[in-house]
Amino acid sequence: MITATILIRPKEGILDAQGKAVEGALPALGFSGIEHVRVGRIVELHAENADQLEELCEKLLANPLIEDYEIEIS
Amino acid sequence: MITATILIRPKEGILDAQGKAVEGALPALGFSGIEHVRVGRIVELHAENADQLEELCEKLLANPLIEDYEIEIS
Repeated sequence: MITATILIRPKEGILDAQGKAVEGALPALGFSGIEHVRVGRIVELHAENADQLEELCEKLLANPLIEDYEIEIS
Repeated sequence: MITATILIRPKEGILDAQGKAVEGALPALGFSGIEHVRVGRIVELHAENADQLEELCEKLLANPLIEDYEIEIS
């Protein structure tokens, strides 16, 4: 069994609605000097082998049109 | 300006609905041998200083009752 951490981020240039929502909420909560907020997902899992992880990202975890993903094996 | 990466994960023992949904979808897509799927969020941002990041996590980014967060400064 391996442990994999998969980071999924919105591609550069793609509108990140969650990031914009966070930025929009900052002033009302008293925060300043925070910018370029980007929100993605982290998926951690155990797998018998790493061979199928790229396909898993392409088919289920990420939307390759608008998201980049990065697979880290530990 | 610093760049911060904030990892937000469901606490151990807390039901992770997104992780369960991924696990439930695996067999129909032909994947096997994948388990213990946990889904969290990754937030990347630029900030003038790191002092306010913990408060930002507590108040806006995470729900401390059910999520753990980890702040990495680079």
